[in-house]
Formats: sequence, C-alpha cells, structure tokens
Amino acid sequence: MVIRYPNGRQFKGEQQKKQTSSKELTYSNRGMTLEEDLNVTNQYYLEKKQAVIHKKPTPVQIVQVDYPKRSAAVIKEAYFKQASTTDYNGVYRGRYLDFEAKETKNKTSFPLQNFHEHQIEHMKQVLLQNGIAFVILKFVVTDQIFLLDATHLIHFYDQKDSNRKSIRKTDIEKYGFLIKIGYHPRIDYLQVVDSVYFPDEL
Amino acid sequence: MVIRYPNGRQFKGEQQKKQTSSKELTYSNRGMTLEEDLNVTNQYYLEKKQAVIHKKPTPVQIVQVDYPKRSAAVIKEAYFKQASTTDYNGVYRGRYLDFEAKETKNKTSFPLQNFHEHQIEHMKQVLLQNGIAFVILKFVVTDQIFLLDATHLIHFYDQKDSNRKSIRKTDIEKYGFLIKIGYHPRIDYLQVVDSVYFPDEL
Repeated sequence: MVIRYPNGRQFKGEQQKKQTSSKELTYSNRGMTLEEDLNVTNQYYLEKKQAVIHKKPTPVQIVQVDYPKRSAAVIKEAYFKQASTTDYNGVYRGRYLDFEAKETKNKTSFPLQNFHEHQIEHMKQVLLQNGIAFVILKFVVTDQIFLLDATHLIHFYDQKDSNRKSIRKTDIEKYGFLIKIGYHPRIDYLQVVDSVYFPDEL
Repeated sequence: MVIRYPNGRQFKGEQQKKQTSSKELTYSNRGMTLEEDLNVTNQYYLEKKQAVIHKKPTPVQIVQVDYPKRSAAVIKEAYFKQASTTDYNGVYRGRYLDFEAKETKNKTSFPLQNFHEHQIEHMKQVLLQNGIAFVILKFVVTDQIFLLDATHLIHFYDQKDSNRKSIRKTDIEKYGFLIKIGYHPRIDYLQVVDSVYFPDEL
C-alpha cells in the first residue's frame, strides 16, 4: 500500500530511508530521490564549511503521546500537517537561502500543482526581505536538474488562474540554469547560486 | 502525567496550545510560554513585512502510518528526535538570522544544560557563514528576556568542561541586551537586532 504525505509525496519509513542513504553511492545513482541527493549534498557543504543548509522536519500535529517507564516517549497518534514554508533554508556567504525541490516524470513540462499557494506566498515574503529564493526542479526521465529563481516560478504560478497548469520545459531551460550532477557533491547547486546571485564575486 | 520532549521541555497536546494562543492576549500575559510569545511575535513581523522567521517543526522519527479509507493518514508510532539545529531561523534585511530560545526559573544564573552540543556546533557553523546567531534567554521569575550573541554563549559553553555549569545573570546583563516586552509585538527582539547587528543603519 502506498502511503502519501499531504503534498502527495510517497511516504517511506525513516528506517528504510536511512538504509538507502548510507552506503553504495554509485555515480549514476538511479535509486536515490531528489530529496536524498540534496540531503547528502547539504551534508557535504556543511562538512566543507561552504554553507549551512538543512531540510526542515516534516511538520506533524501530535495528538497522543505515551510515556512508558524506562523508555522513550512514543507518539501514538499524530497527523501530517501542511508546511507553511518551503522545505530547505540556511545561510551561504551571509545571505539567507531558501528553496523547494520537486521532481516530475513529465518530459516537456513541470506541473504547477507541485507547489502550494502558501509556499508561493512564502517565497514572495522571502524575496521582499532580500533573501535568495529559488526552486530546484528535476526531470526524472532525462535526469536533468534545474535551478529556477522564485521570481520566475511566481510569474508562472500567478498565471495559473488563467488556464496555465504547468511550466513548459523550454521556459525552464530559458529562465533557469542546469545544475551539474556529480558524485561529490551530488547536486552542486551552489555553483549555480554563485553565478546567479554573486556574479561580482567570481 | 508530565510528558517531555528529549530536550526536557514539557509536552502539551497541539490542540491545547492552539487554544492558548488564540484569544485573551493580556498585556502581562503570564500564562504564555516563551515559545508561544515568540510565535506570535514572528507572526506580527511577517504580517508587517518586517522579517520572515519561523520556528522549525519538532523533528519526529516516523515508524508506522495507517492510511484509513476516506480519511487522513494517521501516524501510529513515532518518536521524538533530537534536533540538529536551533529552533528558529529566517531572513531579516537580507541577512540570515538564527536563534534558540530558552527559559529558566533560576534567579541568578542560566543553566548551560539548556543547550546541546550539536546546537552549539550549529551556531558555530552559522557564524562561520557570516549569519547572525544568538539566543533569547528568559528569566521567568523576573520576567526579563535577554538577547545574547552566540559568540558569548559559545565562550561560556566551551568552559563547561572546566566546572562551569551555568552563565551568571550578571554576565548576561553585561554581554547581552534586554529585550522590551510589550503587547504587539510581544517580544520585540528585532529592535535589539537592529542596534547590535545593524548599528550603521540606525
């Protein structure tokens, strides 16, 4: 049975995830999700003292907790809550960095339903505070990953009411930047961040 | 029965919390925890477009999820995980802001056991990236709240091995800054942030 988060993403037990992310990191690495690759990348940046970027925990509404003697508290009833922000944030070169990462199996466009109203709202708020906000978009079939500045996503999203349901891949290629996929770091998005947001310092 | 998070903070059902934070905001406001006051303050900053600062969700290790027909997924078994970062972060004037908030019932000192090794480590990493990092410390008995830059906390924490178990309140008064407690915003810590981290722009 497939279990899903409120955002539609498939739920896998944390145990299972841990196993996957521990060993056997092959270069092509087809079995890894975008999230797992980004977590490994962020860990790399952290160890190399390049940036401090973390994925936020999945927000959970806790209803009932048991507190057995001599062992850890057990949450017996809880529900997934919708996040009020994007999933990733942190600090790079003193600047605030904020992003959401999504993947699609589509070949020619990226469905806008991957993003929620409140996430778009959050990105607008971050831009207003002069933070750096973007999305990392993965086309699974071609194994291509793009960085697209939030201003472009917001522009496309705001046309949603007038029939737009997705962003054309050609538009992502035009306004976004292809991220190099490697071994270590896996998804070197800071290289793109450098060229896009810190062009004077290259 | 008192249920506690791994950090020792008392667990209250989320429902209960929500009730508390909704109405009846009196000025003295003795019933509110520091966390609740900060959430209301951050919401105020967000609405006034002053800053985008959120508390991170409590990290939970999910083990078992039920997926009943026609209703939301129910988490049936989960455990509290220790957070690998501080609780609050966000963006203010383009800069990355990061802090942890703690309260004590002590009158003359602040116990260092309120902070975990990995949180101190995280603050060091943030400082290295030129982020703004501090702690908000509340003395419950006198209703005083201080902002103390992370460099000072780290300094005191690193003396922990050599018998130090707490920071003297006189040191907090000397190196920290008293935050004005008000009605709206409750805990106007950005006023202190302005004077400490943006002195040239006042």
